[in-house]
Amino acid sequence: MTPADLLIVNAAEVVTCAGFSEAPARGADQSVVRIVRDGAVAIADGRILAVGASDRLRREHHVGEDQIIDAAGGIVLPGFVDCHAHLVFAGDRAVEWEQRMQGKPYLEILREGGGILSTVKKTRASAIGALVTGAVRWATACMEHGTTTLEAKSGYCLNREGELRLLDVARTVQSELPLSIVSTFLGAHVVPPEFKHDRAGYLELLDALMVEIREQQLARFVDVFCEKEAFTLDETERLLIRAKSLGFGLKLHAEQFSSSGAAALGARLGAVSVDHLEHVDDAGIAALAQAPRPPVGVLLPGVPFHLAQSDHAPARRLIDAGVPLAIATDFNPGSSFTPSIPMCIALACRTLKMTASEAVVASTINAAHALGLGAEIGSLEPGKRADVIVCDVPDHRWLGYAFGSNPVRAVVVGGERVFD
Amino acid sequence: MTPADLLIVNAAEVVTCAGFSEAPARGADQSVVRIVRDGAVAIADGRILAVGASDRLRREHHVGEDQIIDAAGGIVLPGFVDCHAHLVFAGDRAVEWEQRMQGKPYLEILREGGGILSTVKKTRASAIGALVTGAVRWATACMEHGTTTLEAKSGYCLNREGELRLLDVARTVQSELPLSIVSTFLGAHVVPPEFKHDRAGYLELLDALMVEIREQQLARFVDVFCEKEAFTLDETERLLIRAKSLGFGLKLHAEQFSSSGAAALGARLGAVSVDHLEHVDDAGIAALAQAPRPPVGVLLPGVPFHLAQSDHAPARRLIDAGVPLAIATDFNPGSSFTPSIPMCIALACRTLKMTASEAVVASTINAAHALGLGAEIGSLEPGKRADVIVCDVPDHRWLGYAFGSNPVRAVVVGGERVFD
Repeated sequence: MTPADLLIVNAAEVVTCAGFSEAPARGADQSVVRIVRDGAVAIADGRILAVGASDRLRREHHVGEDQIIDAAGGIVLPGFVDCHAHLVFAGDRAVEWEQRMQGKPYLEILREGGGILSTVKKTRASAIGALVTGAVRWATACMEHGTTTLEAKSGYCLNREGELRLLDVARTVQSELPLSIVSTFLGAHVVPPEFKHDRAGYLELLDALMVEIREQQLARFVDVFCEKEAFTLDETERLLIRAKSLGFGLKLHAEQFSSSGAAALGARLGAVSVDHLEHVDDAGIAALAQAPRPPVGVLLPGVPFHLAQSDHAPARRLIDAGVPLAIATDFNPGSSFTPSIPMCIALACRTLKMTASEAVVASTINAAHALGLGAEIGSLEPGKRADVIVCDVPDHRWLGYAFGSNPVRAVVVGGERVFD
Repeated sequence: MTPADLLIVNAAEVVTCAGFSEAPARGADQSVVRIVRDGAVAIADGRILAVGASDRLRREHHVGEDQIIDAAGGIVLPGFVDCHAHLVFAGDRAVEWEQRMQGKPYLEILREGGGILSTVKKTRASAIGALVTGAVRWATACMEHGTTTLEAKSGYCLNREGELRLLDVARTVQSELPLSIVSTFLGAHVVPPEFKHDRAGYLELLDALMVEIREQQLARFVDVFCEKEAFTLDETERLLIRAKSLGFGLKLHAEQFSSSGAAALGARLGAVSVDHLEHVDDAGIAALAQAPRPPVGVLLPGVPFHLAQSDHAPARRLIDAGVPLAIATDFNPGSSFTPSIPMCIALACRTLKMTASEAVVASTINAAHALGLGAEIGSLEPGKRADVIVCDVPDHRWLGYAFGSNPVRAVVVGGERVFD
């Protein structure tokens, strides 16, 4: 037997989320967390070696005391996969956020230079060093809250040099921190002001930029924000077909403010995920559920919370229809300023009416599938990368039940102890 | 000049909340945080010595490097005062909470033995050691989130020995941890099952118990839960008049589920606070505002959040009318399972439409007044106890804007560094 080089023992629950490496859990399976009580996890060479009873694994694997993490009655889970995050940006939007909370109309804020374009302006003007410092800070915060794989979207420069810079910053973060960064090109976030009267010109620029990004392997996915204020369904389709032909995986910001048909488009084009879905209609849900390989619906409960809105994605209808769900932070300075997946689990249970088990599956194995990584991460099964966290709660339900504090006490990425 | 023994320097903002030691801030003053930019705080003998520009205080106070806390561009605030918390209990209510989230009617949960009486049952059966362990754990979590003074209500035993034990546990927590515990006797939480048909008998018991608690100086306040399911307005009045005659300060759980007149009663009896107020009506608001010394309205936004309800206290109407407001966690296993005042500030900005400034005043100086301690704590002014925290954010607005992570990086209680 391979000797273990790290043992995590004495877990009240090892929550494995096993059994869904090939395809995401959906329907009744959305809540199948699979728990080993009084459990342990053995790790060797950066991979999961075994999961089982704590007593047995301690007998079978002889490691030094300094190779043991004592979960001390807490729970052990696969590291969280935050599959929708806008990691790289400059500045904040605290003032504008407070104005919105106090009732100022968003259109007025936009007229005064606020909104996403204010972040674009600051990000374009920012030196790369400051962008790296910020992104490292936020990625570290995500990691401290249990995230071991983090998506990083570009989309706050909206020009050639800037978007390449943002993807480069994500690559630097990857080299500086132990967690895994998965980069997504979101040049199609909104049309930038200088192309306001030349949408075709911006689409051409995106087209050329995709080729360049693919050649430099700077991003794994292309994402398009399909919405009235951003890109039409036709534009989205054209961009995504082109992206697919170049070998990118596909993602969409779909049905956030209105029912647009973007979810069905994602299903038809074989997107790995369709994200937001606050306004998805029955036809959209059916299209997702009936796809040969349904995209993962990525729900982002931090957004309505952050903006104090009551538009919640129809999680129960999506689950009942058989659409696999993930949840993610949508970390960004404008509409969801939290690095914490546990916070999003607490929100999912309350505003999306998901059970804690469903939310755990949604933030681990299903989120891994939303990044095309279901075979590699997201569950505790022999052979998978040893991304493992320990939470200081007696029961996985507490991830929903308790709120506002960080339950994560230890983080292991690829078999390396990040902290414990 | 007294030599300082601790300096906190390099704060982007020192948020003093000064000027309201005699009476809580209200109306337009609710948002007066008073900020010293590039500021510092000098501490001597456990008290605030000076607040001012960082440069100046470093020049004027010569201390060793190990007596300096570098706020490093973060913000410095008075320690949070959590003025409404049910600290001592056994067990949790995670299962029942999830059932409620999934739509199970609360009455059904009660019929099956859930609800507050399930916590009473577990707490009565718990050994004192386990109660101390739990209370120390939660008080520590509160402290890690910046709370330097914490209320601890009894109310989960509802019999003589048990209630005395809970107050004794709170006293033990006080002796084991640096933060300040303020004990409140809440024997009048609900009528326990054994007195279901003898309310008069339970009121007599409470009466005798108040005498005993006063003699032993086990609590500073008496609180009564005035609500259909708990104690009538008449019963509440009788209990509070008796408590006042014994020398207790008065608190009320008022107008949480229905408009009962409890707020006006609190105003008339000179209560230090009336707590909840989700259903306070215009007459209640007027009675509070017009009292010679208005009680502090203690709002508890964690409760509707925890239970996914939409009953929010009318914070803006209360402020406009001139009622001073505090916010608190209402930490308890049934209806608000968070130890975090920053989380409650984030909620107050979103669901109560308070500004970040108002919420900061509400969780510091006004919360101190809700515990009768406005002259001693709650602001950074020379002579006050040196309860000071450092938050890793650039601006106090971020306490509302960012959510789901703990901004608190350093805590000083009575001039002693708890962590930094």
